[in-house]
Amino acid sequence: MSIYQASVTAPVNIATLKYWGKRDKSLNLPTNSSISVTLSQDDLRTLTTASASPSFKEDQLWLNGKLENLNTPRTQACLADLRQLRKQDEEKDDSLPKLSDYKLHIVSENNFPTAAGLASSAAGFAALIFAIAKLFNLQQTNSELSKIARKGSGSACRSLFGGFVAWEMGSQVDGSDSKAIEIAPLSHWPSMKAMILVVSDDKKDTSSTTGMQATVATSDLFQHRIENVVPKRFEEMKQAILDKDFAKFAELTMRDSNQFHATCLDTYPPIFYLNDTSKKIIKVVERINSDAGEVIAAYTFDAGPNAVIYYDEKDEEKVLGAMYKYFGSVDGWNHKKFQHGNNEDEIKGVSRVILTTIGEGPQSTEESLINESGLPKLATSTNN
Amino acid sequence: MSIYQASVTAPVNIATLKYWGKRDKSLNLPTNSSISVTLSQDDLRTLTTASASPSFKEDQLWLNGKLENLNTPRTQACLADLRQLRKQDEEKDDSLPKLSDYKLHIVSENNFPTAAGLASSAAGFAALIFAIAKLFNLQQTNSELSKIARKGSGSACRSLFGGFVAWEMGSQVDGSDSKAIEIAPLSHWPSMKAMILVVSDDKKDTSSTTGMQATVATSDLFQHRIENVVPKRFEEMKQAILDKDFAKFAELTMRDSNQFHATCLDTYPPIFYLNDTSKKIIKVVERINSDAGEVIAAYTFDAGPNAVIYYDEKDEEKVLGAMYKYFGSVDGWNHKKFQHGNNEDEIKGVSRVILTTIGEGPQSTEESLINESGLPKLATSTNN
Repeated sequence: MSIYQASVTAPVNIATLKYWGKRDKSLNLPTNSSISVTLSQDDLRTLTTASASPSFKEDQLWLNGKLENLNTPRTQACLADLRQLRKQDEEKDDSLPKLSDYKLHIVSENNFPTAAGLASSAAGFAALIFAIAKLFNLQQTNSELSKIARKGSGSACRSLFGGFVAWEMGSQVDGSDSKAIEIAPLSHWPSMKAMILVVSDDKKDTSSTTGMQATVATSDLFQHRIENVVPKRFEEMKQAILDKDFAKFAELTMRDSNQFHATCLDTYPPIFYLNDTSKKIIKVVERINSDAGEVIAAYTFDAGPNAVIYYDEKDEEKVLGAMYKYFGSVDGWNHKKFQHGNNEDEIKGVSRVILTTIGEGPQSTEESLINESGLPKLATSTNN
Repeated sequence: MSIYQASVTAPVNIATLKYWGKRDKSLNLPTNSSISVTLSQDDLRTLTTASASPSFKEDQLWLNGKLENLNTPRTQACLADLRQLRKQDEEKDDSLPKLSDYKLHIVSENNFPTAAGLASSAAGFAALIFAIAKLFNLQQTNSELSKIARKGSGSACRSLFGGFVAWEMGSQVDGSDSKAIEIAPLSHWPSMKAMILVVSDDKKDTSSTTGMQATVATSDLFQHRIENVVPKRFEEMKQAILDKDFAKFAELTMRDSNQFHATCLDTYPPIFYLNDTSKKIIKVVERINSDAGEVIAAYTFDAGPNAVIYYDEKDEEKVLGAMYKYFGSVDGWNHKKFQHGNNEDEIKGVSRVILTTIGEGPQSTEESLINESGLPKLATSTNN
């Protein structure tokens, strides 16, 4: 039995200028451009093996050891696009195996616990699209592939690049110009680091898809944000990245996180993602910056209470030193060189920290998750 | 010794269309018009006696039994305005005693605990201005007096009326058209009731004066709110009150509370007044409305985590019944006719409830707080 396969890894990205709002729901076309930082795959990545064989009976996806449903309109749209591109190549070159006609077996695993509540769909769809593109030997650029990933999960398009990434909203009705581009590679500013504070939450958040549609439909402030605030901020943030101006980048990042959550609160009925612990983290970052006499740390929050803190390696002592004082008792600290605070300093509500850096885009790998029968190998990666 | 005196009471008002932002700080001129509901003085009022005598050596104010500083620019501006009006009357009628030249002794008491964290400056300044106006026998309308109260504390101007009140922002540079007017008296909609949930808070809030200046200076969304949202909402809310359309009034009230807090969050650095308990109260109100199949309760939050819930008397059973389920174990319930929920339903973080109705504007009273020597009588009212 001939089985063709390719394995890749793809990273998580965390927006610093937020994507919130679709102008076209089925194509995942956004109401505004966004910017993100790609995080290191050493700490957070999805590994995906895509395989194709004439012997497979149906398309199947195993995610973290569990069979998942591939029959969603979004996933089907991605598979159709990739097969279409492969078919074009096969039509040009008769010697190519007809992979576009074969069923696919896809196996995917995250190296971070799902329980951490980190949005994994971006890394997941980026890895899915990149793995199949490798399997099909597609020659499209990552920007072209990002348009396909976008249809699976909007923010997934930004996980096709490492370093600093923009998702240009585009203006075409068919989405042909709504794609990710690299603002600057990891090598431009490799000292940028990130700390994730995983915040416990006792309630179910409104899903981003539902939430953003409600915001677009009901928030008066939202229209002003996308028309009058984001276009200018997009240019300013790109420039701050190119200038490696951390203070500017940080202020824009914090203002944009706040404004995104403000439009959630202006939604009717209101949507809350920040909780009291999130607010305490904001106050800690404000104190770190005020003690330093300059802006050396930036917070950002997505559609949930978890915080991501960006800082430059040169300020690690100050930033992590302060953070350790308040959150030193939880898991995830990889060294104990910082001074733990008094018990009364401790802020409750954070369940773990993840210390990481910015990282590269999707990578090919020799590590396969599929055995000779085209089925998942026994799980070896961390997942729960 | 001749002592002239007058005693009045003035109510608390709670904005349903929020005042947030000054266009002139010293005159307390707002960036937008606002609307409020006056609460019953049976539950929340300031009682103030103003007295004048040629024997008094200096202006003095006792608030809740403590001597307070009268030498603030705001209070001085109020006293100067009132003395100026009195002087005009004295110049026209030689037989009038020259009260405008006498020093004032003012004694003021609230009938609600300061610890409840309810903004008392509105009732306090309204009572102060109304008491001195009575003492001086001024013939100005309450709208005219509201302009003086406004200089003491912006929202105090709305406490010069009962029922439903608008503060028209005006356009004059000197503030001569920035005043309160009655939208509808208490008798128009006497079945409107209010429930206050006093929420415990462990942090010091940003003061409204500081907070609103920061919002005006830094929030991009704020400008849009005052220019494009509030003017339309002001007219719609007035009409909903005139129509006694509770559902419309309620939705506008909740949207405006949310949007006010959204602009606080869009302030840089962000200002948070709502805490996790406030959010749970919002969810309870959403559930009450969803269970009723119509909007029968409205929440609003000022610059702090306390909630005020408006509802119509006809829905009291449904609204208070549900509230009792979640908050039945705290002080302030005046009857126990509602079914208490299970322990697991109870929401912590509320320290007491105040059940009240809408009420009248300032009233003259025979109850004096000043003795024959022109000094405070021993306190008899509740205060702490």
